[in-house]
Amino acid sequence: LSAEGARLRESAIRRMGALMANAPDLISFAPGYPDESLFPWDAFREITARLLASEDGRAMQYGATRGYRPLVETCVELMRDRGIAADPADVVVTTGSQQGLDLIGRVLCDPGDVILMELPSYVGAISAFQNIGADLVGVPQEADGLDLEALDAVTRRLRADGRAVKALYTVPNFQNPTGLLVGLEKRRALLEWAARADVLIIEDDPYGALYFDDVTRPEETRAIAADADPADARVIYLSSFSKTLVPGLRTAWIAAPPPIAVKIELAKQSVDLCTSPFDQRVVHAACRDGVLARQLPVLRAAYREKRDVMATALESALGAAVRWTMPRGGFFLWVQLPDGLTGDALLARAHARGVIYVAGEPFFVDGRGQEFVRLAFSSASHDRIGEGIRRLAAAINEADRA
Amino acid sequence: LSAEGARLRESAIRRMGALMANAPDLISFAPGYPDESLFPWDAFREITARLLASEDGRAMQYGATRGYRPLVETCVELMRDRGIAADPADVVVTTGSQQGLDLIGRVLCDPGDVILMELPSYVGAISAFQNIGADLVGVPQEADGLDLEALDAVTRRLRADGRAVKALYTVPNFQNPTGLLVGLEKRRALLEWAARADVLIIEDDPYGALYFDDVTRPEETRAIAADADPADARVIYLSSFSKTLVPGLRTAWIAAPPPIAVKIELAKQSVDLCTSPFDQRVVHAACRDGVLARQLPVLRAAYREKRDVMATALESALGAAVRWTMPRGGFFLWVQLPDGLTGDALLARAHARGVIYVAGEPFFVDGRGQEFVRLAFSSASHDRIGEGIRRLAAAINEADRA
Repeated sequence: LSAEGARLRESAIRRMGALMANAPDLISFAPGYPDESLFPWDAFREITARLLASEDGRAMQYGATRGYRPLVETCVELMRDRGIAADPADVVVTTGSQQGLDLIGRVLCDPGDVILMELPSYVGAISAFQNIGADLVGVPQEADGLDLEALDAVTRRLRADGRAVKALYTVPNFQNPTGLLVGLEKRRALLEWAARADVLIIEDDPYGALYFDDVTRPEETRAIAADADPADARVIYLSSFSKTLVPGLRTAWIAAPPPIAVKIELAKQSVDLCTSPFDQRVVHAACRDGVLARQLPVLRAAYREKRDVMATALESALGAAVRWTMPRGGFFLWVQLPDGLTGDALLARAHARGVIYVAGEPFFVDGRGQEFVRLAFSSASHDRIGEGIRRLAAAINEADRA
Repeated sequence: LSAEGARLRESAIRRMGALMANAPDLISFAPGYPDESLFPWDAFREITARLLASEDGRAMQYGATRGYRPLVETCVELMRDRGIAADPADVVVTTGSQQGLDLIGRVLCDPGDVILMELPSYVGAISAFQNIGADLVGVPQEADGLDLEALDAVTRRLRADGRAVKALYTVPNFQNPTGLLVGLEKRRALLEWAARADVLIIEDDPYGALYFDDVTRPEETRAIAADADPADARVIYLSSFSKTLVPGLRTAWIAAPPPIAVKIELAKQSVDLCTSPFDQRVVHAACRDGVLARQLPVLRAAYREKRDVMATALESALGAAVRWTMPRGGFFLWVQLPDGLTGDALLARAHARGVIYVAGEPFFVDGRGQEFVRLAFSSASHDRIGEGIRRLAAAINEADRA
């Protein structure tokens, strides 16, 4: 085995997926799966029938590594709607954003190079970057995002030690796992800091369109990339159709400064040649025909309701025993357990009572976070959310007495 | 950029794809694309309609990294039909075999580790292994496959120099680019050699089912993996649905000894989480419903006819000016140009006359092969094959006079 082969670790979320597969009555708050009952089946039936009726060979042939050109243009338009002035030359369609993270890591980092990570941060990014040998260094977050003084201090210290600090990875919109929405002032400050410190920003934005309009205005989700100076080539932006359309078509995109996009394309050539041309056409048609646009308000309302169901259930079952911040969008409630209880220690009791979640520690590159659990409210029905929280509360109460 | 980022090179075949995109009357013998007119459209319409009518959320949700379990079992059955005693624990479904090659390279090789390659060999494997930093060392081939004495001598010399020789990559069935079918005796000898030399065999088998029965018996395509001792954990086998069903669903598989399969699965987790669950279900249904089984004799007959059309056209247009070996299966004719003419030098003239191919050099890891061109007869119609060869002959004759 290679050093990478020896280093490989299973992600905490995927491990939960394996647990889940074997227990039919289990209620899972573990993976951030979108709600299958909201998938636009009628549209997919109509689109695939039309695509296959055309018998256009290109829909089932190898395709361009950059992506199906009309879909590349769709990505440009979606970014324009988010205030980002991108160009087709910036875009690479990827086989999910997970592939985007892997490709970015491979193109930018040699083993030992540093990527700065929010504390906590998305485990899929942590796995991708760790597997390519990057050294991940955590920076604490405040209520409105990263602690800029800490960010500066950590970077200076690393550079004084001769380390190559390549990039900062951030999920500013409804972060996975905390649900945190980074403030607009903080976003601008991050961009200035990055230019000053000469660090790339990797901005991962799968949830930006899923804001909850009772407490969030769409302007508050404005991408960091929207305010980047194109001449400065400072931000690599990722977004995805997995949370807004479906994850099963494995279609996402990267927008990067062209010299980086070219390298990402070359890396992708030897990684999978191209993302499924058929899936890309389905996604493109769903965007062009207005399916995505019609889905978004439905999803915002549905996930907001689910958040409320989970928050109300938590409040009623556990009251002040646990603490959390009400998410303003996205899929996750980030819960701090009662003093002395860890997410890991609770998991066996919770699983025995038929509910699972992801414990907090894998989200922290500094090994902390034992007192947290991440609850995804996205996937389960209202009834199951309520029942799952009652089971979780029973497990917590039992653990408290033990 | 990382060392890998700096190292990245565009594959010769993908570069041809870019050339091709811009010229409507161009006849391309460049990429090994399957014939789109043979795609089973009716079956795909029926299967996708049925899959989507079920509204089974799992078809559009994130899926298991190992692959859709029924498809994993289908892969096991397909291997059993090829004499390989595999188990679901050995299998990882990949996003095309290109992903398989990348994952294998990442899991096995540190930068500088050696993979032994046939001279010539598949450019996609060369790119994947070079991009992860492996050092590729070529071994000459004879009429029935690798020169065993040379293989032994090269390996001894490398080891004497302290190099880690990790694997031998081979495409024994209708090799890309030569079309060569490795003899059964040679296959057994390779397996014995690999055990003796303690080197893994990476057996890539996309074309094995596409033998031409005028000159090849199916037994002659018997996989090396079929005769491997499971206890010896010596062979990693790859195969794909790209050439036999369609490439556009990006579905292939690896069968590896379980300790390696586990690492490949972990690597895939951080590379793309899973191969498109929807595409996997379409491929699975096409296998289960007999679509693949019905396609195979049709494809064998169609590609055999195309080989004949190209060979006859070459014979009539160029006679003894070029040399080739009649392929016994697969997609490719490997042609040696007249003395003094190189594939690279000819390309501009050929392109000007409206025909392209892939020049031989990128298939050789030792930088030789300038006198060869690879002609794919798989994609173009009979008329276009004939016309393309006439254009190529005109370009060669013009170059000869120049």
